[in-house]
Amino acid sequence: MSKERPSRRNTDVVPANDRLEGRNSVLEALKAGREINKLWVLESKDGKKPDPVLSRILNEADKRKIPVVRSRRDALDRISQTHNHQGVIAAVASHEYVAVEDIIEKVRSEDRDPVLVVLDELKDAYNLGSILRIADAAGVDGVIIPKHRSIGLDSVVAKASAGAIEYVPVARVTNVAATLRDLKEKHGFWVFGTAAEGQTPYDKADYKGSIAIVIGSEGEGMRDIVRKECDYLLSIPMAGNVNSLNAAVAAGIVIFEAVKGRMN
Amino acid sequence: MSKERPSRRNTDVVPANDRLEGRNSVLEALKAGREINKLWVLESKDGKKPDPVLSRILNEADKRKIPVVRSRRDALDRISQTHNHQGVIAAVASHEYVAVEDIIEKVRSEDRDPVLVVLDELKDAYNLGSILRIADAAGVDGVIIPKHRSIGLDSVVAKASAGAIEYVPVARVTNVAATLRDLKEKHGFWVFGTAAEGQTPYDKADYKGSIAIVIGSEGEGMRDIVRKECDYLLSIPMAGNVNSLNAAVAAGIVIFEAVKGRMN
Repeated sequence: MSKERPSRRNTDVVPANDRLEGRNSVLEALKAGREINKLWVLESKDGKKPDPVLSRILNEADKRKIPVVRSRRDALDRISQTHNHQGVIAAVASHEYVAVEDIIEKVRSEDRDPVLVVLDELKDAYNLGSILRIADAAGVDGVIIPKHRSIGLDSVVAKASAGAIEYVPVARVTNVAATLRDLKEKHGFWVFGTAAEGQTPYDKADYKGSIAIVIGSEGEGMRDIVRKECDYLLSIPMAGNVNSLNAAVAAGIVIFEAVKGRMN
Repeated sequence: MSKERPSRRNTDVVPANDRLEGRNSVLEALKAGREINKLWVLESKDGKKPDPVLSRILNEADKRKIPVVRSRRDALDRISQTHNHQGVIAAVASHEYVAVEDIIEKVRSEDRDPVLVVLDELKDAYNLGSILRIADAAGVDGVIIPKHRSIGLDSVVAKASAGAIEYVPVARVTNVAATLRDLKEKHGFWVFGTAAEGQTPYDKADYKGSIAIVIGSEGEGMRDIVRKECDYLLSIPMAGNVNSLNAAVAAGIVIFEAVKGRMN
């Protein structure tokens, strides 16, 4: 009989894009009905009061017959991508992207004008997660990101989104400028960009109708080819010395102003 | 003659709080006239065009006779705290905190009403850096943080602040609730907090006069003892499923609205 060789494949390792980490992220995924294949949970210590969010996760997993693996902290640390798993990691089906047209059609079928947010080559997972939270909270209908040279929907983004990734439809496109042109010409959108040299104060613009708000990348802002497709360049008046805002903060200020402006 | 022992002390190591990293952070520090004791710069490659920001840094360092050490990438990586030094690290005098009273006195001596931002136990360096950028851009007069259980002004915050740390006065206090009481009773401030259960829509509040805007911590929001000191609890109306905003994003939305409201 040949000696059994230890398998090189660790069954506890799932592909990078297929994990969700942290109590709130996992709970939101469960609440949103997302398919979860397996849960790793930190083994409990005797006499320690269970965390209420964790209890809800375990109840829900039990109801839905999701296998739960109790693991030691070092095992979880090894599986973790975010290095902040809070004792809970889920193996999930990959996030699916949607088509831009499907978002538009769905919103118009509800007799509403769509609000889309377009991210031009955002690089930072934390910013993308924060913007998904903004999009959820502000009631944005969908987020568009480029396929290349941009961060995608991975587990770090999922964690930073605090669960918003489960609710906000995200479309990936090969060419942001061409997509904006299509939005304007085929679908009647108004396109707003943000730029230091913008001529329209962000709180004076008319945000009514079908609109797309473009947010540039962290370092360089919008690319020229994208800027050219904007109907309005918005400026946020600034009074300081550095006068640069984090991309997610700028997005939050403009998107909440836009949503407010649509109600009046 | 005794054999020379290698020194255990690496003179290239400076205390953690005394570094600034990244091209923009270092350039802003130079522009703001901050004392810099030494610069480590990545050795240049033959024939490579020098980066324009780096050239400005080197010119300025030359003018101010700051010693520049050309180092290899692995040496810089070893010194780096942020792991994103972009080839430039500066040894600087520690950031100095100011007194709350000094901020108020200075602003009032200019015949203005102060706007302060108070951070209740913020834990994330990235958020503190982002909020310093917001404070600079919005023209906030000072930021107050607690001495304990809060992130302080370290090199990661400095980098995330993109240079705003050089311009925004920061005060540290032992007791946030007591400080808010003082602001109200001794200095005639109105105190605004943000809370999910807030009764005042953030865009309907009267932000005129001397005001302090309190931002809660990432996970838990404001502590109860701090919430009790607020004259108004602001709410940001939300339309989604998760309805939680990153602390810096919420700060940006409220602070920009407040600044706008003061101008009308």
